[in-house]
Amino acid sequence: MIEEAGPSRRELLTMIGKAGGAIAMYQAMTALGHAAETQFTGPPALSGARKGSKVLVLGAGLAGMLAAYELRKAGYAVQILEYQARPGGRNYSIRGGDKIVEVGGATQTCEFQPGNYLNPGPWRIPHHHRTLLHYCKAFGVELEPFIQMNHNAFVHQTKAFGGKPQRYKELATDFKGHVSELLSKSLNAGALDQQVTAEDKARLIDALRDWGLLDGDLKYASNVHVSSQRGYDRAPGGGVNGEPTPSKINSLSDLLDSKVWTQMGFYFNYVMQTTMFQPKGGMDMIGKAFAKQLAGLITYNAKVTKIAQGDAGVSVMWEDVKTGKVSEAKADYCVCTIPLPVLNQIDIQVGAPMKAAIKAVPYSGQVKIGLEMRSRFWEEKYSIYGGHSFTDQAIALISYPNFDFFKDKPAVLLGAFANGAGGYQLAGMTPEQRIEAALAQGSVFHPAEYRKEFMNGVSLAWSRQPWILGCCGSWTEASRAQHYQNLVAMDGRIVLAGEHASYYGCWMEGALLSSLDAIERLHKTALAA
Amino acid sequence: MIEEAGPSRRELLTMIGKAGGAIAMYQAMTALGHAAETQFTGPPALSGARKGSKVLVLGAGLAGMLAAYELRKAGYAVQILEYQARPGGRNYSIRGGDKIVEVGGATQTCEFQPGNYLNPGPWRIPHHHRTLLHYCKAFGVELEPFIQMNHNAFVHQTKAFGGKPQRYKELATDFKGHVSELLSKSLNAGALDQQVTAEDKARLIDALRDWGLLDGDLKYASNVHVSSQRGYDRAPGGGVNGEPTPSKINSLSDLLDSKVWTQMGFYFNYVMQTTMFQPKGGMDMIGKAFAKQLAGLITYNAKVTKIAQGDAGVSVMWEDVKTGKVSEAKADYCVCTIPLPVLNQIDIQVGAPMKAAIKAVPYSGQVKIGLEMRSRFWEEKYSIYGGHSFTDQAIALISYPNFDFFKDKPAVLLGAFANGAGGYQLAGMTPEQRIEAALAQGSVFHPAEYRKEFMNGVSLAWSRQPWILGCCGSWTEASRAQHYQNLVAMDGRIVLAGEHASYYGCWMEGALLSSLDAIERLHKTALAA
Repeated sequence: MIEEAGPSRRELLTMIGKAGGAIAMYQAMTALGHAAETQFTGPPALSGARKGSKVLVLGAGLAGMLAAYELRKAGYAVQILEYQARPGGRNYSIRGGDKIVEVGGATQTCEFQPGNYLNPGPWRIPHHHRTLLHYCKAFGVELEPFIQMNHNAFVHQTKAFGGKPQRYKELATDFKGHVSELLSKSLNAGALDQQVTAEDKARLIDALRDWGLLDGDLKYASNVHVSSQRGYDRAPGGGVNGEPTPSKINSLSDLLDSKVWTQMGFYFNYVMQTTMFQPKGGMDMIGKAFAKQLAGLITYNAKVTKIAQGDAGVSVMWEDVKTGKVSEAKADYCVCTIPLPVLNQIDIQVGAPMKAAIKAVPYSGQVKIGLEMRSRFWEEKYSIYGGHSFTDQAIALISYPNFDFFKDKPAVLLGAFANGAGGYQLAGMTPEQRIEAALAQGSVFHPAEYRKEFMNGVSLAWSRQPWILGCCGSWTEASRAQHYQNLVAMDGRIVLAGEHASYYGCWMEGALLSSLDAIERLHKTALAA
Repeated sequence: MIEEAGPSRRELLTMIGKAGGAIAMYQAMTALGHAAETQFTGPPALSGARKGSKVLVLGAGLAGMLAAYELRKAGYAVQILEYQARPGGRNYSIRGGDKIVEVGGATQTCEFQPGNYLNPGPWRIPHHHRTLLHYCKAFGVELEPFIQMNHNAFVHQTKAFGGKPQRYKELATDFKGHVSELLSKSLNAGALDQQVTAEDKARLIDALRDWGLLDGDLKYASNVHVSSQRGYDRAPGGGVNGEPTPSKINSLSDLLDSKVWTQMGFYFNYVMQTTMFQPKGGMDMIGKAFAKQLAGLITYNAKVTKIAQGDAGVSVMWEDVKTGKVSEAKADYCVCTIPLPVLNQIDIQVGAPMKAAIKAVPYSGQVKIGLEMRSRFWEEKYSIYGGHSFTDQAIALISYPNFDFFKDKPAVLLGAFANGAGGYQLAGMTPEQRIEAALAQGSVFHPAEYRKEFMNGVSLAWSRQPWILGCCGSWTEASRAQHYQNLVAMDGRIVLAGEHASYYGCWMEGALLSSLDAIERLHKTALAA
């Protein structure tokens, strides 16, 4: 039926719905690609704001700017107060000449060459983050592919393979080979006869033989067939000496040391699946594009000190961080996107449940380090173009740049993307110590070149950024159950928004979806008032 | 040791070599990324050709043009005869206005919009094809990422899931989940106690639990954890309704119908692994860049009719296909890159072993179809950016374009990349019938849009191209053993080159490696003469 030209999608779904009931209908919708990708259903169609209504937005990150953009379209007067001197918040890129001042006073000035940058916050956009993609397109932000998966990058465990990094393709091929061999053997030994029918058993063994590259005896072994996935000792070539020679597989035991399934699973994460994108020229192109839409509405260098509300509206006290001058801003409603660790220190007039929620969410402490290298040696010498090499050291990974491939000029490697214990470790160091640690640890992947090609580096420890004091909200199942609805519920004239007020924590998409949800509720409240 | 700045790579390898012998040395070389990626060791350092020596190159495909380029550098006089009116051979892009004439007379004129193209031959470059990457860089060919793997594209089997395409991520997640559950169960039941030590067994179960997303009972089940890889029924969002709902997993039996392991393995093929590239603006940018280096050396529209050799040199008779004029070209040596199905029909003066080899290699019959669509509906409506949707129908796959993402203008889908039976089927049709088949079969993926958005299409059936009569050489293990060395061996003053004379059949890299090998032997022979 679906090979005919006739029916529209709606007709088709109706036909399927009639034929097989709701489940078939849902399956068809999924198969046709219209379900489940996102909660985004297009920009909100808000309109009819009461004449003269005003909304005060706190924070010019993506959540705040989207709220301001859509509320203005709906007819509200809008003002944004932003603590920093720039828009975007964590949507941020560090370039040559940029200064980074940390809590504690440590100051760095980035020395990158023109055109190079570090995205210290968000750095990759999943293909299903449709809210973000929608506004990037609407605001003219050009996107280019972000190479997420790279079979030829490295996997490194300090205690595996004598500490020598291994290519992902070798370990991953070996893992599926050994798993296939073992499962085939069990199936043939009758161990799973209770679980698997005879027919499925035969089909599954065929599948495992094919997928795991097993030989005629259902063994995973060193041969040219296996090398056609894990790589050769000598690659195929041309002419008289063209014949390839196979590589040697790893034992199951060595593989288990490598923990390669961690990476194999990582690439399968919904938010980590290819295809991914990045803005051309740096992630902050997005924040800048949003800000361009809001010319004149954003007051920078505005430190919010008090948020109050009453029958008449909201009142926000703020200080100009350059002049020290204190002002009051008034509005009918307030969308507050201030990060929780900062909001937690501000006198805010909301009920106890929201106050408790604000306190309940600790922020993670990621550290990113950018290392500018004289040449793209990882491309020429290692055949690594984009993607990540993973390690169990504090830096967690190094990631290779996704633009200017093949070019003969300095490029910036992501030299660390630390979190958890590694993040604490690196955040506790001086900026100079962090660079040294990144060089020492990253050298494991490119020992001959890493220090030799190094020019300069810059680090961002999110827990030491005074305007946020952390990277993003860390919810647990327990804190979600107790506090999430209290955090997102409108409290009088105040509603919170940001990635912390979403189930997409740490993602720009979460900030945007939270913002849309918040302003839709705000608008309803305002109309009902 | 390798975290210190001191030793050079050579010193390091020497130290490792002394410490652990040759195997450690080799392992270290592999780990450092300098072994096994390619047989290419840089451009050949040929020099000192005898004054006045001339080489005649037949065919201005990549193998022929590389031979000409490097031989001229070595001091030879070089002439290239090319049957077609353009350089590149199978390195070819079809654009609006281009005419395609088939054996049998069928003629198409491509109607694509400016900027759109179909790469009917090679279309993606593996990151380890270092010969090709080297010359692309040397000749200024700009490359952009080719999105090979896409977790969100479709997998379709006519007899699975009622013929409805499924997202790759769903099937692949389910496959590894079921495999993990079954293997964990066998391990726990003691079925593999002979093969796996107790310690490895515990570690492997941990690995399978993590990789396969098994629950506390080691079961693969429908839950939010599993949905974090296979996708949700309702994706996570922001604000009050942000909580996601899990999707429903498929049964093992349904999965086995889907044959998803075929795709899971495909992405693991050495030549199919990310990162891959394509030239900006069309694959033929490579052929054009090579030809630009050889200005004046290529005679186009030259049909070779006879290749003879003797003590004095080689003599090649050729006909100008435009004027019918017959000429003789003479040289000391000849590099012949004419495809075997055509060479097989030319009077060539070589020994019986090479003649037999020329006859022994059939060519595959791929068919590619380009479909120009009014909009990139696969992006906006299906969240598919690049990558392939696979099917067991004749078209084999459809592939989504890798440039101009998000743009509001017509784009060209690869509507078929048929081979084997599917290739024969499509090649046997008229061009109009092929387009109709591609629309009918491809509609399975995008039923509501495929025909509605279709503007025009063009097909290339390689078996019907008069200048090659097939796509590329199909070696078997038996024909390799019997004929390969006879095909590539120098026969007097004649040497063959091309992908057919390599272990990298059907790849540009094979053509180039074969060419380098051929001219190095030719040069040695010439110097020794």
